[in-house]
Amino acid sequence: MDYDTIRYQVSDRILTLTLDRPEQLNAFTVRMAEELVDAFGRASTDDDVAAIVVTGSGRAFCAGMDLSASGNVFGLDETLRPTPSEIRDRLDDPEIVHGVRDTGGRVTLAIYDCPKPVIAAINGPAVGIGATMTLPMDIRLASDKARIGFVFGKLGVVPEACSSWFLPRIVGISRALEWTYSADILSAAEAHEGGLVRQVVPADDLLPTAYALAAKFTTDRSPVATALTRQLMYRNSAQPHPLEAHLSDSLAMFYTSIGDGKEGVRAFLEKRPPRFTGGDVPRVFPEKD
Amino acid sequence: MDYDTIRYQVSDRILTLTLDRPEQLNAFTVRMAEELVDAFGRASTDDDVAAIVVTGSGRAFCAGMDLSASGNVFGLDETLRPTPSEIRDRLDDPEIVHGVRDTGGRVTLAIYDCPKPVIAAINGPAVGIGATMTLPMDIRLASDKARIGFVFGKLGVVPEACSSWFLPRIVGISRALEWTYSADILSAAEAHEGGLVRQVVPADDLLPTAYALAAKFTTDRSPVATALTRQLMYRNSAQPHPLEAHLSDSLAMFYTSIGDGKEGVRAFLEKRPPRFTGGDVPRVFPEKD
Amino acid sequence: MDYDTIRYQVSDRILTLTLDRPEQLNAFTVRMAEELVDAFGRASTDDDVAAIVVTGSGRAFCAGMDLSASGNVFGLDETLRPTPSEIRDRLDDPEIVHGVRDTGGRVTLAIYDCPKPVIAAINGPAVGIGATMTLPMDIRLASDKARIGFVFGKLGVVPEACSSWFLPRIVGISRALEWTYSADILSAAEAHEGGLVRQVVPADDLLPTAYALAAKFTTDRSPVATALTRQLMYRNSAQPHPLEAHLSDSLAMFYTSIGDGKEGVRAFLEKRPPRFTGGDVPRVFPEKD
Repeated sequence: MDYDTIRYQVSDRILTLTLDRPEQLNAFTVRMAEELVDAFGRASTDDDVAAIVVTGSGRAFCAGMDLSASGNVFGLDETLRPTPSEIRDRLDDPEIVHGVRDTGGRVTLAIYDCPKPVIAAINGPAVGIGATMTLPMDIRLASDKARIGFVFGKLGVVPEACSSWFLPRIVGISRALEWTYSADILSAAEAHEGGLVRQVVPADDLLPTAYALAAKFTTDRSPVATALTRQLMYRNSAQPHPLEAHLSDSLAMFYTSIGDGKEGVRAFLEKRPPRFTGGDVPRVFPEKD
Repeated sequence: MDYDTIRYQVSDRILTLTLDRPEQLNAFTVRMAEELVDAFGRASTDDDVAAIVVTGSGRAFCAGMDLSASGNVFGLDETLRPTPSEIRDRLDDPEIVHGVRDTGGRVTLAIYDCPKPVIAAINGPAVGIGATMTLPMDIRLASDKARIGFVFGKLGVVPEACSSWFLPRIVGISRALEWTYSADILSAAEAHEGGLVRQVVPADDLLPTAYALAAKFTTDRSPVATALTRQLMYRNSAQPHPLEAHLSDSLAMFYTSIGDGKEGVRAFLEKRPPRFTGGDVPRVFPEKD
Repeated sequence: MDYDTIRYQVSDRILTLTLDRPEQLNAFTVRMAEELVDAFGRASTDDDVAAIVVTGSGRAFCAGMDLSASGNVFGLDETLRPTPSEIRDRLDDPEIVHGVRDTGGRVTLAIYDCPKPVIAAINGPAVGIGATMTLPMDIRLASDKARIGFVFGKLGVVPEACSSWFLPRIVGISRALEWTYSADILSAAEAHEGGLVRQVVPADDLLPTAYALAAKFTTDRSPVATALTRQLMYRNSAQPHPLEAHLSDSLAMFYTSIGDGKEGVRAFLEKRPPRFTGGDVPRVFPEKD
């Protein structure tokens, strides 16, 4: 797939995904969604990519859904009246995929499924889907020029992109409700104070800080162990009982211990950097999702 | 239903529910529970109510279960010996409802089910059920005279009112355990420091602060989108996988986009306030609960 | 069971469990795991034990898995290739228990199942399983000499001991990912800042602080109500709907109200300390786990 709305650039094993419609403040379109889903899928299996940094071109991160398109910006099929059971049963039916399913959610589920660390480098305004798309990214860094707004309420619609799953986990249920009810535009400092953003840095330091963190997460690391760590943390933290975690982390520990873990222990005892070889990520959960 | 223990007052589309037994420090009774369940149900379908503020009459918020009634204050039927499967199977059987089920929990489940934003304005001591009833409220504001205590341990009983579901989500599992094990009475500042309370204000500023927040949450807002936002946040944040959020927020986004969202987008593009019309809240989850 | 690697000492109804291989910085072995599982099981039914404090002998808390043993330190059976469904189906099969299941997870599940408050007194380095074993403890106190590291990534393996269930609940998903990706050794202050540790104290104050907290949690407390409180908080906070909490806390409130709660209310009204008698902990959840 060729990308018209984003850039995919790999350097030093870090993929930089840049939202790239600077004249439109990187406003989100159905095309951009499809390219992001494709890019996260491609990065997932690209052995040259150890971690991913997402940022915006120009002065914005992403100004939200592009509302300038006349008419049906979400591409919905208004002749449908889907029920809760119907969307579940026909999840991959093209009529439901394109006519009903939330476009932003297709992007955030692709990020959730990605086996590499993902860092958001929020360089400017991140509004609507521009804010919610950062929630499945592991860590959010913000330039002091960043502004973040869950503004859906002002438009008479709801927060999307699985943000009702992610946002309360990151900032707590009370703050998640306040920010979505109020639809306020938060300053970078407010987003940091609320726990949404790890760190606020001067604009010029944003990408260097993101790259330094990505390098720290990937240098002398086993890609298999990192992929499993990401999967274990997101999935098991949401399970009803720690026994579920025990089942999957036992398998993950078993397979990494007889895999890259052997070299890891040897290198540790010999006080030298490890030379991990990678390989396939073993299946440690009963079903794909 | 006429109310003896609470007041139900609507002004400027904000309902103020006042716990109103000031001579008894608004101590909780089975009657008060029934009136609160009724009032939240009534507010849920009352189109004149856009948001709810809960406070106490006089110097207390709620001093907990009224223990002055001689004998069986909880109204339990001690001849029963319910099992976990029996209470589940006979949940709505009057013998179980009145003889076994926790009265406070019936109130907090009614608050959980409410489609309007709910703000606790804690004006003084909030102890036992007086503390736990505030947990399903979206935001807690406290006067500097507030004192909050999860004091059940001192009485040889357990925290109730679904507080084991709500409290760890709000303040974390470690603090929830410390506060319930210790049964300490927390100052307003301690409750704020621990993340339970959003903001501590002088006593005279408490209700004005609550009303200002309620107005911000409801002015130029779609009641349908707000109801769905509240439901999505509480339900989806507790699901095991973000796909569950995707199913319901897709439906919520679909129905709001072809509903109030059309006016929202038009008003945004025309740089004018929206005129939302409301309507029925669409069903976006497979079952009622 | 006689203990070679830990000490089990009860004083003033507080059990102190001391990891006791000081020459090896209390490095974890399969033997230590078995002794810890036995000790938490013993403490669970030991009426002389009201609360548990866990600490380390000498200058370390626990330096992680003892990697000095040559070869297969985890005791894994590398001839096996377990699948997700197989480990679930054969969870108690000795071949899976000893050849596949994570040893640390067997310890943390035993701590999770314990009906007494558990406090970690982290006196020095706590690394790998030395860090993850503290996560199911209710409260973590740290000496200013403590260092905490989720260092698995450096060895090419994954965080274990159900830490993917516990750690994000304690410090949030974003920090849990950062700490495990980076494998950094955190200072006591950093662990406190991140919400992992309740309080940092001078080394000499560590055990006195832990004992004071344990005494506060257990003096004039009903062991039945405390056991149920711990169980309700951990289990219900992870349920998908508060109705689940209502079912179990109704039963817990019912049985404590007609048990120790009667004395608790009487003592409260008579303004005297209660004399709780204890007894069996009623079953309030449908299944054991």
